[in-house]
Amino acid sequence: MIQKLISGIVRTGAPIVVGLDPMLSYIPEHITKEAFATYGETLRGAGEAIWQFNKGIVDAVCDLVPAVKPQIAMYEQFGIEGLIAYERTVRYCKEKGLVVIGDIKRGDIGSTSEAYAVGHLGKVKVGAKEYAGFDEDFATVNPYLGSDGVMPFIRVCQEEHKGIFILVKTSNPSSGEFQDRKVDGRPLYELVGEQVARWGCECMGDTYSYVGAVVGATYPEVGKTLRRIMPKSMILVPGYGAQGGKGADLVPFFNRDGLGAIVNSSRGIIAAYKQEKYASFGSENYADASRAAVLDMKEDIASALAMRM
Amino acid sequence: MIQKLISGIVRTGAPIVVGLDPMLSYIPEHITKEAFATYGETLRGAGEAIWQFNKGIVDAVCDLVPAVKPQIAMYEQFGIEGLIAYERTVRYCKEKGLVVIGDIKRGDIGSTSEAYAVGHLGKVKVGAKEYAGFDEDFATVNPYLGSDGVMPFIRVCQEEHKGIFILVKTSNPSSGEFQDRKVDGRPLYELVGEQVARWGCECMGDTYSYVGAVVGATYPEVGKTLRRIMPKSMILVPGYGAQGGKGADLVPFFNRDGLGAIVNSSRGIIAAYKQEKYASFGSENYADASRAAVLDMKEDIASALAMRM
Repeated sequence: MIQKLISGIVRTGAPIVVGLDPMLSYIPEHITKEAFATYGETLRGAGEAIWQFNKGIVDAVCDLVPAVKPQIAMYEQFGIEGLIAYERTVRYCKEKGLVVIGDIKRGDIGSTSEAYAVGHLGKVKVGAKEYAGFDEDFATVNPYLGSDGVMPFIRVCQEEHKGIFILVKTSNPSSGEFQDRKVDGRPLYELVGEQVARWGCECMGDTYSYVGAVVGATYPEVGKTLRRIMPKSMILVPGYGAQGGKGADLVPFFNRDGLGAIVNSSRGIIAAYKQEKYASFGSENYADASRAAVLDMKEDIASALAMRM
Repeated sequence: MIQKLISGIVRTGAPIVVGLDPMLSYIPEHITKEAFATYGETLRGAGEAIWQFNKGIVDAVCDLVPAVKPQIAMYEQFGIEGLIAYERTVRYCKEKGLVVIGDIKRGDIGSTSEAYAVGHLGKVKVGAKEYAGFDEDFATVNPYLGSDGVMPFIRVCQEEHKGIFILVKTSNPSSGEFQDRKVDGRPLYELVGEQVARWGCECMGDTYSYVGAVVGATYPEVGKTLRRIMPKSMILVPGYGAQGGKGADLVPFFNRDGLGAIVNSSRGIIAAYKQEKYASFGSENYADASRAAVLDMKEDIASALAMRM
C-alpha cells in the first residue's frame, strides 16, 4: 500500500491528502435540507448529510490527489449513524482508487491494540469466516503506550500490506507540553522519531517504509530534524492551511527526491467555498471550490519545492 | 458522576470495575451457537454473541460492583455491528445503575478532541435537536497531544457532570519506553501526573476530582509516587489478575480514607469459568463463575487494605 501511495503521489504530482473531517456547519444547506427532509433532524439525517457532502468532494477531487484522510472523530460524534457514514466514505474512496488513511489515533496494549488493528486494517475471525470491519489502507497510531501498542498494528500491516503513521510531533499549540520535554537534552519527539525509524527499517516497501510518522506543518524546524532521523519514513503532515502552515514551511519535510511527505488539508479544502477566495463558486458548487483549492495547494507546494531545487 | 462512583464504592465495599472486554474465545459455546444459528457466522452474529455474554455477566455482578469498563477496541474490531453491541452494553449497564467507564483512550486536538468528547460523554447538535452518541459516564483519554487534547473533554465533563481518566502510567511491559524517560531527572509519567493534578483541582466533586488517572497495578512503586502527586484524583488501576497485579500491590494506589482507587479486572472476571479455580461452575454457568471471581477479588483487596490499617 505504501507503493500505491507513492506512485499516486508521482502520478498526480500532488503530495496531498484531503482531510474528510466534515462538521455539519461546513455542509451546504441544500444537502442538509434534503437529508433532514428524508430522515429528520436525527443522527441518521446527520450521517446522510455527511455522506452526500463527502461524495461530492470525492467525485470532484479524486483524479487530483492520491489519498484522503477521514478523521473518525467527526463521524464518531454522531454515534453509530456517524460511523456508518465513515464506513461508507472509506468504501467509496477505495472504489474511486484513492488510498484511505483512517485518522483514528488509536493505541492501546497487547490484544487490545491488536483488536484496533484488526478492526481498521485487518480481518476479524467469526467462526470459520473472516470479515474486514472498517478496512482503511493506513491508520494513525498514538505511541504513548510504547512497542506493546504499536507492534500489533505492524503485524497486521505486514499481513495485509497496509501501513501506519505514528504520532511523533503533532501540529497543535500545546503539543510541546509532553512531546518537547527534554530527555537527556533532546526532546521526546526525537526519541519517538528514532523508534519510528527503527520500526520502519523492518517494514520497508521498495523505497519507503510502511511505518510512517505524523509531524505537524506548524513546526518546520522540527520537521527538518525528524526528516533526518527518519529518512525512510513517509511523513504525514497536518496543519497546512487553516492551522497556519504554508507551502514554504513544508519543504523541510520532503527528501531531496521530492518525496517522503504527504500534506493534509481538511477545512481549507472541504470548506473552501466558505473562504472569500472561493466564494464565487457558491454553496451549490462547493465541490468545485474544493477542486480549485486542491489545485492551488498543489501549485503552492510545487513552487516551494521548486525553489529549493 | 464522580460522586456516584464514590458512593457506589462505599455502598458495595468493592473498589472494583469489571472490564467488559469480550473476545469471542471467552464466550461459552451455547451463546455463540445460538447467535450464529440466528444471524450466521457474521459480524452481526458476533455482536449478538458479545451482547448476550455481557448481559449474563452484568446481571450476575451488578449488585456487587459500582462500575463496568467496556473496552471499545474489542467491539470496534467487529466494525459497526460490534459498536452496536458496545452501545447496547453501555445502555444496559446504565439501566442497571452501574457507572460506565468507556475505555476508549481517545485523544486528538481542538475540535477533533471535542468531537470525541461530544460523541462519548456529551450531546451533539443536529439542526435544532441534540443527541447523545455513545453516552458513557467516564472515558479514558490519551494525553500525548497535551492540553489541547484534554481540555475539550474537561469542558464536556463540566457541562454533563461526567469525568475522565487520563493515561499516566499504563500497565504494559513496554510502557516505560516513553513514559519512564527522564525529564530533568524525573520520569515523564510524573510530569503527566502533575498536569493531571492541576487539571483535577479545577474539576472537583465533593472529595475527589472528576479528572482521574490510569496507573497500572503492575507498577506499585509508581502508584505510590503518583498517589502522592495526585491526592485528589481517582486512580483507575488496570493490570490486576491476568496481567499479574495482586491485592497487596494495590495498597499504594489507595488513600488513607480507603478510597481514591478503583481496580479493573477483565479476563479474570469475565472468563473466570475458564480458570481451574472456577471450572466447576461449567460454561453454562459462566456468569456465576464471574460473580464468584468478583467476590474473591473484593476479599483480596479488602484484606490487603486491612493489613495496612
